[in-house]
Amino acid sequence: MKTVIITVGKEVLTGKTVNTNLTLIASRLNQIGIDVNRSFVIDDIKEEYYSILDYIDEDLIIFTGGLGPTIDDISRETVIEYFKVETYINQSVLKKIKSYFDQINLKMEDTNNKQALFPKESIILENELGTAPGVIFKAKEKTIVLFPGPPHEMLPMLEKLVEYLEKTNNIKLFSNGFKLVGIGESTMEKSLTGFYDLHPNVNIAPYATIGEVKYVFTSNNKDDLDICMNEFYNKYTNYIYGNLNDTLEGVVVNLLKDKKIIISIVESCTGGMLASTITNVSGSSSVFNESIVTYSNEAKTKYLDVSKNTINTYGAVSSECAKEMSKGLFKKTKSNITLSITGIAGPTGGTKEKPVGLVYFGLTYEGETNTYKKIFNGNRYMVRKRATIYALDLIRKQLINWYIKHGFKTEDIFQ
Amino acid sequence: MKTVIITVGKEVLTGKTVNTNLTLIASRLNQIGIDVNRSFVIDDIKEEYYSILDYIDEDLIIFTGGLGPTIDDISRETVIEYFKVETYINQSVLKKIKSYFDQINLKMEDTNNKQALFPKESIILENELGTAPGVIFKAKEKTIVLFPGPPHEMLPMLEKLVEYLEKTNNIKLFSNGFKLVGIGESTMEKSLTGFYDLHPNVNIAPYATIGEVKYVFTSNNKDDLDICMNEFYNKYTNYIYGNLNDTLEGVVVNLLKDKKIIISIVESCTGGMLASTITNVSGSSSVFNESIVTYSNEAKTKYLDVSKNTINTYGAVSSECAKEMSKGLFKKTKSNITLSITGIAGPTGGTKEKPVGLVYFGLTYEGETNTYKKIFNGNRYMVRKRATIYALDLIRKQLINWYIKHGFKTEDIFQ
Repeated sequence: MKTVIITVGKEVLTGKTVNTNLTLIASRLNQIGIDVNRSFVIDDIKEEYYSILDYIDEDLIIFTGGLGPTIDDISRETVIEYFKVETYINQSVLKKIKSYFDQINLKMEDTNNKQALFPKESIILENELGTAPGVIFKAKEKTIVLFPGPPHEMLPMLEKLVEYLEKTNNIKLFSNGFKLVGIGESTMEKSLTGFYDLHPNVNIAPYATIGEVKYVFTSNNKDDLDICMNEFYNKYTNYIYGNLNDTLEGVVVNLLKDKKIIISIVESCTGGMLASTITNVSGSSSVFNESIVTYSNEAKTKYLDVSKNTINTYGAVSSECAKEMSKGLFKKTKSNITLSITGIAGPTGGTKEKPVGLVYFGLTYEGETNTYKKIFNGNRYMVRKRATIYALDLIRKQLINWYIKHGFKTEDIFQ
Repeated sequence: MKTVIITVGKEVLTGKTVNTNLTLIASRLNQIGIDVNRSFVIDDIKEEYYSILDYIDEDLIIFTGGLGPTIDDISRETVIEYFKVETYINQSVLKKIKSYFDQINLKMEDTNNKQALFPKESIILENELGTAPGVIFKAKEKTIVLFPGPPHEMLPMLEKLVEYLEKTNNIKLFSNGFKLVGIGESTMEKSLTGFYDLHPNVNIAPYATIGEVKYVFTSNNKDDLDICMNEFYNKYTNYIYGNLNDTLEGVVVNLLKDKKIIISIVESCTGGMLASTITNVSGSSSVFNESIVTYSNEAKTKYLDVSKNTINTYGAVSSECAKEMSKGLFKKTKSNITLSITGIAGPTGGTKEKPVGLVYFGLTYEGETNTYKKIFNGNRYMVRKRATIYALDLIRKQLINWYIKHGFKTEDIFQ
């Protein structure tokens, strides 16, 4: 099924808005085995619609944008006119639009009426979050879809389209995936070389962000999918932290909740990023009471009793300092687990012995403090972000007894 | 000059990569008065290039992507072939590519040779950050541009293209802008209604992100631009925090540095986001020593001596608590300015009296503590982000004596 996505809107062509709808629609369709052939962005001008509709030959044509109530919004009437299909005004949609305006205490303009115009044979995609409904209809042996521009209005309709396509095209695809941390996409891809060939009936797609990578598996055969994902899971258990709906911080907060464990952290180079990431999880207050950013050496001594001698001898960015920070916090709080981060985020402050990107972590749990050393690449933001993700993964591994399972028990195990 | 941008790459059509190059190129060209008519995304298949090149009628054709060394990367040879221009291998580019491989200790493959292929009459856009050079050439009365896909490699070449277009099209455009905080785009647009008409010779473009908005001004007449920007500045002085290259946290850190002032902060609902934002500024360590996240009521009492009575009587999310948090931190640290944040980020925890989004701020400076109350809309992340930006703006206004200039002197001035 050849597919084209056409985004309508000057704001994308002036660079004011990123074309996120393309990304959202394409990746979702990809999951049910539908490839997007091409994608276009056009201005909301009648001639542009006609030109592009004359040119394309795809079977599934998806428009997004241009469904609003203003004179500029001409997607609905123009596309319907182009395909010469009979239309009607849907009274129930009209009523809904009217009540929407009553609700927000605004007078409904006559121009809103056109939002209730549909092809006689069409599927209406109701808009729960705005006035512009979407629509699916058939004409000239093509399937035409009109979506509104705002992504949050479009997304629920995209799910309806997926259902429709699965039904009408007899697509029965199964899809699932894993999120991984602690391994890069290129390392993964190298190690997966033979794996792809062993599972020809499963589409395996990696998506990478800073410090994380997710793999989405799709197949029309549930057994093939399960076998493939099982093998993948066994191969990469040490890196898999959850499924596609999980976040690393959400997994960590849930592990803490399950074990009724309170965490405290002290950050230097990440400057609050780890605390901020954990507290972005709703409900984190049940496992997180307090956190400190000790940016200066003085603050490390003041809040955590890090000895001046340690700082003078080894420096603030050292395994020794990370250990004392974590231990100090453990003593000062009633927490069950404490984590410290100290490093050089750059771009300045690096030396040959201690380069930019060098970060030490200290983790205290059940009376023991282990320290970890890593060198992260990238700019200041990336070093801080990678250190934050690494710290979350340290906590996760500690809580699932990863180190014990893998025979690590001594201090400074990663150095 | 009718312009089209063609992005080449399966990864955009599968939703793996967002089409950021479109946004970057379009907004930059917009600044020199060149509108992008349309934009296409195609797969790197020869037929797709030919189909789209047969179809389009634009004068300026910009390709991005498909310039790499692999067999899949066919932009260079395909587009050159389509336009039937004479070519040559540029020896100096070939040498550069070879030395690039030497530098990273990799063997140069034969396929890399094609990256030195250019039309005889062309401008080579050197690539300082990769192996694929870009190119500008003319054919069939059109200007054709080939850029590599990675944005960081493309951006320096985009500046070269801008220079070229300014010169060849005799464009002499002046562009500048302001960044604003504390006012939304829709409020701005309403208040600017008459303003646009007063400056017909200046293009004024707003770009909004959460909590901030920037305005870019462009004109072919320097005087018109200056007059327009001066008027804009006078009209919105209270909201303008800097020019296009500034960040709000960078401005705050610079103000603190200028005044040799040390800041400390204590956060509840933002959970470290403000500290993390400040410390993302390189060099912030000279004005920032320490910061605390007091998420629990106990932590507020323990670190800041907030009285239990205050919390029991007014609640942790109250003007009174914000004041005691800020005052407590001021006493505990050697800082010159302290700021506290306490609020309800949601989605749970809101009541009729204290809804989700309610946030109190306490600012202590020169012996005085003022508190501020705001209700932010949006989801948990947006409430936290808006509170962080609002806090940075509070500090900024305090440091530029905004409140004194505007006759505010009493406590709780914003309530």
